[in-house]
Amino acid sequence: MASTAFADSAPRACDLLVRADAVITQDDERRVLTDAAVAILNGMVIEVGDYATLDARYDPLQRLDMSGKMLMPGLVNGHTHLPMTLLRGFADDLPLMDWLEGHIWPVEAKLDEDLLGIGARLGCAELIRTGCTAFLNGYFHERVTGEAASGCGLRAVLGEGFFAFPSPFFPTAEVCWEAIRSLEEHFRDDPLVRTAVTPHAAFTVPPEVLAASFELAESLDIPWQTHLAESPTETAVCLGKYGMRPVEILRREGLLSPRVTLHHCVDVEEKEIAQLAASGTNVVHNPASNLKLCSGMSPVQAMLDAGVNVGLGTDGASSNNQLNMFRDMGLAALMGKVRHGDASAVNAQTALDMATRNSARCLGWPELGRIQAGHPADMIALDLSSPNLMPVFNHVSHAVYASTGMEVCMTMVAGEVLYLYGEFRTLDVSGLRKEAVRCAKWVRNASGK
Amino acid sequence: MASTAFADSAPRACDLLVRADAVITQDDERRVLTDAAVAILNGMVIEVGDYATLDARYDPLQRLDMSGKMLMPGLVNGHTHLPMTLLRGFADDLPLMDWLEGHIWPVEAKLDEDLLGIGARLGCAELIRTGCTAFLNGYFHERVTGEAASGCGLRAVLGEGFFAFPSPFFPTAEVCWEAIRSLEEHFRDDPLVRTAVTPHAAFTVPPEVLAASFELAESLDIPWQTHLAESPTETAVCLGKYGMRPVEILRREGLLSPRVTLHHCVDVEEKEIAQLAASGTNVVHNPASNLKLCSGMSPVQAMLDAGVNVGLGTDGASSNNQLNMFRDMGLAALMGKVRHGDASAVNAQTALDMATRNSARCLGWPELGRIQAGHPADMIALDLSSPNLMPVFNHVSHAVYASTGMEVCMTMVAGEVLYLYGEFRTLDVSGLRKEAVRCAKWVRNASGK
Ligand SMILES: [Zn+2]
Ligand SMILES: [Zn+2]
Repeated sequence: MASTAFADSAPRACDLLVRADAVITQDDERRVLTDAAVAILNGMVIEVGDYATLDARYDPLQRLDMSGKMLMPGLVNGHTHLPMTLLRGFADDLPLMDWLEGHIWPVEAKLDEDLLGIGARLGCAELIRTGCTAFLNGYFHERVTGEAASGCGLRAVLGEGFFAFPSPFFPTAEVCWEAIRSLEEHFRDDPLVRTAVTPHAAFTVPPEVLAASFELAESLDIPWQTHLAESPTETAVCLGKYGMRPVEILRREGLLSPRVTLHHCVDVEEKEIAQLAASGTNVVHNPASNLKLCSGMSPVQAMLDAGVNVGLGTDGASSNNQLNMFRDMGLAALMGKVRHGDASAVNAQTALDMATRNSARCLGWPELGRIQAGHPADMIALDLSSPNLMPVFNHVSHAVYASTGMEVCMTMVAGEVLYLYGEFRTLDVSGLRKEAVRCAKWVRNASGK
Repeated sequence: MASTAFADSAPRACDLLVRADAVITQDDERRVLTDAAVAILNGMVIEVGDYATLDARYDPLQRLDMSGKMLMPGLVNGHTHLPMTLLRGFADDLPLMDWLEGHIWPVEAKLDEDLLGIGARLGCAELIRTGCTAFLNGYFHERVTGEAASGCGLRAVLGEGFFAFPSPFFPTAEVCWEAIRSLEEHFRDDPLVRTAVTPHAAFTVPPEVLAASFELAESLDIPWQTHLAESPTETAVCLGKYGMRPVEILRREGLLSPRVTLHHCVDVEEKEIAQLAASGTNVVHNPASNLKLCSGMSPVQAMLDAGVNVGLGTDGASSNNQLNMFRDMGLAALMGKVRHGDASAVNAQTALDMATRNSARCLGWPELGRIQAGHPADMIALDLSSPNLMPVFNHVSHAVYASTGMEVCMTMVAGEVLYLYGEFRTLDVSGLRKEAVRCAKWVRNASGK
């Protein structure tokens, strides 16, 4: 008895003990702890509790004093195209199809891996700066984005995009599947990087190719994602081509499943929402992009009420024009009210759930998005001395409605600090700026503008 | 000839020469200059041009090197209630009437001047931090807000609010008019502070009181402002009380005029928009507040197309929950597209115009909102090394779509630097944080929550 008691009261080892004024845990009870601490060992949270208790219980190798700050889970970006950061602000105030066909696709066709890598690293810098610790990507040459993310310590799920075959990248489906298999294999031993099968959209990829690619996702046991029901225009194209609305195309092919994440779902009807819910299909809401491209306002609260898992994403910086999950979290909450005619729709806690736990499920990485014992130590700190965060009545309200994202003063993934008080520890941001200047010149030349 | 040439080439005096990578002038031609400079004398801009030219022409007392930054006019907040910053995040996710009657008004009734002063200074800190240099306020005990603004170097137009009479503050109209006259007189010699006549709204102030207060504004030659047509609910109340929609109430009383600024105008019809335009009446759009309180989406582009001067405001931090004009500028542009079903509606230049030149007219201070010779030296700098501002294709796009407001690294009013690289020169922000903690306790007690 006595020796057990002694063993129990002896200090326990941990790598890092982080103290903060408050911790938004996003655990199952959605607890917000004050004067709290988080103990971390081997990149995992091993305990969350009040500071005095954890201070007495642990003998940490290092301490991080975040007094005057609040901790929360790193945000999870459910949908982006990281290398497109290169095209931030290049073409604004245009509708989806004009923007893609007249401006984005002609330049994209000329991008090489060097340029894509710079775009990806620029994107990583912004994600780290604004408190995002994991993202679900979709683009081309995805190895480049995987290396950028892994190199700077961010978690990424890569999506090598494809259209119909033959295409400039992939003459046949089998060549594409092989590329995806080798991408998955390349990063298999990297704990930060995973892969998802990523057809572009139901209006650009034929149904039988969608179905074949889903079999690939099943055989590799990885997520399958696509853009879907982004706008009424897309619905019209699908109806014209296939006589079916986008969700129906997927349903007929057996592509509604918990393995599936659909980006946008702006133009979905009640019956379709029920189908998404019943099948466990995940949806990612992208409010800034949907507004900017005039795609419409997604019925987010209706989907949530029906039981759909709805995460949150920024989409690419060329249609947002930020990669700032705090901005999209606030937008989701604000827009949700007018979309549903109800000031209580998409409340602050709901928006935060979307940006953390729900997005984590969209990535097929459901252990992310919370600060809880047994979960990865992916977390961020917000500086409560920023004037816009005073006074404090409700920490969750401040995260969603009052924060700009720039209050983030610490970003950590798997227990590693990537950013602290203005210092990027894994990226040379001033070097990136010089590369960005060079890239902007290249884009202007390539577009003839 | 020779001596004139000599005189012309002799260095001219100025107080300050500011150099920057770019200057968004917001002049009549909307010029954006690169590698540029601004010369300032006695609080006024005396010249804007390329750096090499101005460097050769002036012998400044001081220089401010903002290389790597872009200058733009200080943003002008067309509508706020600064002391309500005290109630940031106190009551969220509620519709307008519940929020006012069930939560805000009961606490407001107990606020004293000490508490209001803290709220006002908190608000000033956020405005300075996020690049706003002038604001149009509406609240009670407005001398407190005037002293807060003047004390920290911001421009303010004060609006001592009133409802019907008798009220707790003003037993009769004459007592209220006297209070407004003395407020105006109190600040008459302060170049930073002006006054506007400010009835609360057409559904809370009887038409004959609105009309009498407008006569006061005319006699003092100051602006007249009120909340108007904020939501369909308000319209229903006005129809029930007076058998008229809000705009019609004003029109019948002769209260549509260039002296008038109307806040919100969400629920306005085509005919009413034409009346606002024809009369030169100003409107302030408050996108975040309109979404959060589920008031609706204002037809901003339709008003602009009709010729209405539409400025931009944050409304109070209790319904926003920020006082960040960059956030509302981005929202105006994003929402405008979906509101009008047109991805080119409320484009970046339009949103910037709203937040600068148009808002300045709403304040009755049209010389603000631009960086131009002969205009006040109210300007801000944004740090282009922030990851979210790379690369640069279009400076105006970055200001509207990519900035969070926290990229502001310098805020200047009348040639005085109020904020530079994290340092508040006119406010003790860490002292304010302690006061904010005390106030939050007070509010919780006062509300019994
Ligand atoms: Zn996308
Ligand atoms: Zn208001």
